[in-house]
Amino acid sequence: MKSLGLTLAAALFATTAFGEPTATGDLGLVIERAKGSVLLVDQSERAALARIEGLGDLSHASLVYSPDERFAYVFGRDGGLTKVDIVTREIANRVVQAGNAIGGAISDDGTLVAVSNYEPGGVRIFDADTLEMVADIPTDSKTIGLVDAPGRRFVFTMWDTGETWIADLSSGDLDITKISDMGDRPYDALITANGRTYITGLFGEDGLTALDLWDENPQPIRVLPNYGRGQKEMPVYKMPHLEGWAHTGNEFVLPAVGHHEVLWINSDTLEESGRTQTYGQPVFAMARPDGRHVWVNFAHPLNDTIQVIDTVSKKIIHEFKPGPAVLHMEFTPRGNEVWISVRDAGKVMIYDTHSFEKLREIDADSPSGIFFTARAHRTGL
Amino acid sequence: MKSLGLTLAAALFATTAFGEPTATGDLGLVIERAKGSVLLVDQSERAALARIEGLGDLSHASLVYSPDERFAYVFGRDGGLTKVDIVTREIANRVVQAGNAIGGAISDDGTLVAVSNYEPGGVRIFDADTLEMVADIPTDSKTIGLVDAPGRRFVFTMWDTGETWIADLSSGDLDITKISDMGDRPYDALITANGRTYITGLFGEDGLTALDLWDENPQPIRVLPNYGRGQKEMPVYKMPHLEGWAHTGNEFVLPAVGHHEVLWINSDTLEESGRTQTYGQPVFAMARPDGRHVWVNFAHPLNDTIQVIDTVSKKIIHEFKPGPAVLHMEFTPRGNEVWISVRDAGKVMIYDTHSFEKLREIDADSPSGIFFTARAHRTGL
Repeated sequence: MKSLGLTLAAALFATTAFGEPTATGDLGLVIERAKGSVLLVDQSERAALARIEGLGDLSHASLVYSPDERFAYVFGRDGGLTKVDIVTREIANRVVQAGNAIGGAISDDGTLVAVSNYEPGGVRIFDADTLEMVADIPTDSKTIGLVDAPGRRFVFTMWDTGETWIADLSSGDLDITKISDMGDRPYDALITANGRTYITGLFGEDGLTALDLWDENPQPIRVLPNYGRGQKEMPVYKMPHLEGWAHTGNEFVLPAVGHHEVLWINSDTLEESGRTQTYGQPVFAMARPDGRHVWVNFAHPLNDTIQVIDTVSKKIIHEFKPGPAVLHMEFTPRGNEVWISVRDAGKVMIYDTHSFEKLREIDADSPSGIFFTARAHRTGL
Repeated sequence: MKSLGLTLAAALFATTAFGEPTATGDLGLVIERAKGSVLLVDQSERAALARIEGLGDLSHASLVYSPDERFAYVFGRDGGLTKVDIVTREIANRVVQAGNAIGGAISDDGTLVAVSNYEPGGVRIFDADTLEMVADIPTDSKTIGLVDAPGRRFVFTMWDTGETWIADLSSGDLDITKISDMGDRPYDALITANGRTYITGLFGEDGLTALDLWDENPQPIRVLPNYGRGQKEMPVYKMPHLEGWAHTGNEFVLPAVGHHEVLWINSDTLEESGRTQTYGQPVFAMARPDGRHVWVNFAHPLNDTIQVIDTVSKKIIHEFKPGPAVLHMEFTPRGNEVWISVRDAGKVMIYDTHSFEKLREIDADSPSGIFFTARAHRTGL
């Protein structure tokens, strides 16, 4: 490159010729929420490779990867489902499947992509190859907490009715199991990495509700029914992301709702095993892949800061301010580095997770979610 | 393809033109132990794509992947370290670094490849890019149980002296910590998926020895000191592979030495939590990625059979005979399928792990180890 005056687009173009042999194991996509684009990044090079545009409203977006780590399925707020080819760096297909969507999942065999909708409610399931709809599951409710589970299953929950449904497509046909009494207005959910435990957070009452999916007949299990969720009503958009829960050794770590603290839960007994006071209301509490540290970011207006907690002592061992509006963190698969979206700085920042040294900054337009391709190999991500 | 008379090589050649964009997330290599070759396979297509030859003596071989899932580093019995490019499908580099080697590892940042040697003993560390040696660590012992640990570290153990060494390269320099008294003739070792616990199997005495690598000053912890290893002396080549240990929920499952059973160990207390009687002497006991089932194969002459154990009931729920000389099993990363090497049938067989139905057979020449690229993202694999 001859000049610092080159635009980002030109710099990106110069990086790699399309169609060259491409290994995809260390790539990733960053959501650029304002532009409706995604930025293709390379973990090993610590660099942006390309920008792919035209994905619609990404103001609340997430994505999943195909098993070969070639295609990303991006779920946009506007109900758009966009299939991005990260090898050719272009949109392979796009459908607008609903009026307002809230995330999706991909089946363990990689053949089915499911999307969870607010408007209309319900879940729609698409052929991962063609994006043709193969199942439409109306629920008469806003549908949240959609995850994939082993055995070609999807699990999701109704905001309005407090039911969780398990959609089993292992036979080829759609078989639905409904579990009622999950609690008052479940607003988000997660599945543990082994696909066994599904946990919903509740907006309308204290505590959470778990299901043991290994049970022949799963029943709601109350978790921390009196932990003391903030008493004043809060809008849903300030609730912490449950996808960001950490599972470290035999404990879960989760952001407390309405408090400046994270909660520790014994994963065998589902009882509280500790609390750690934090700088602000936590949004994501994410375990480094080895489980030794948990990194926490915070809600506005304290969202310029990250704290790192040691999981043995449960104490904060490091605190720093990457910049304004830290929205998301993603660890490299083996945990040696972490990439952090700092929206209002227009940067993705890369840190060494052992020395806490900053290694690189990458320009990005209002970056939010960061998704590395290794997620293809994980359940529930 | 016009004729069934096409050779495998021609059929392979016809599959895909080299240099096309290639996503590598669902690929893998199968060791062909007699020919000194590896077979490139595609999980999604359930097919062989290419054979890469010239890797020397692979009669006892293993490999690790680069973080981008492009390069495999193959450790041969003859001391050969071969770097295979699975995108261009050719050998990128090869060095014969010792007289007799016994496995290797790659650092968490993907920059260093370490090899464990019998002749001469010790460990040698190579630049992953160039294969130039960057560190030579003589140990005056056959060296076994080499694994990578988080923070640019390698851990390995001395057969002759019963020491475990931790080589820390995080500063750029080589810093070695030595732990003595691991036991009499450690013959293999593993590290847990989170990189915290290192466990050696002992040939010269009953039981095993663990280290907590999160400890500032790790000390040997005796595990099952009286579990009753077979009393008659056995050659090392019949000892079970510790790499095949399963970690499921809060238990480890390991093949008992000299008995027809697997042992269950509580991963918190490191005390025995059960035994399951099996068809033969187990060689590999491998957990399906969700931890619900453990698949077990057996030593000669009972090596035509596989048993599947449910980890909740600890009972055998399925048994079948894939064919003569079942040497290795590898699960797809999300656990929906398993690939099995049946050496004397000259086949890799693919099964659905939920229905146990056979899905496909692939021809392979004396197949042994199967290694999918998703290992790139795991510690200790």
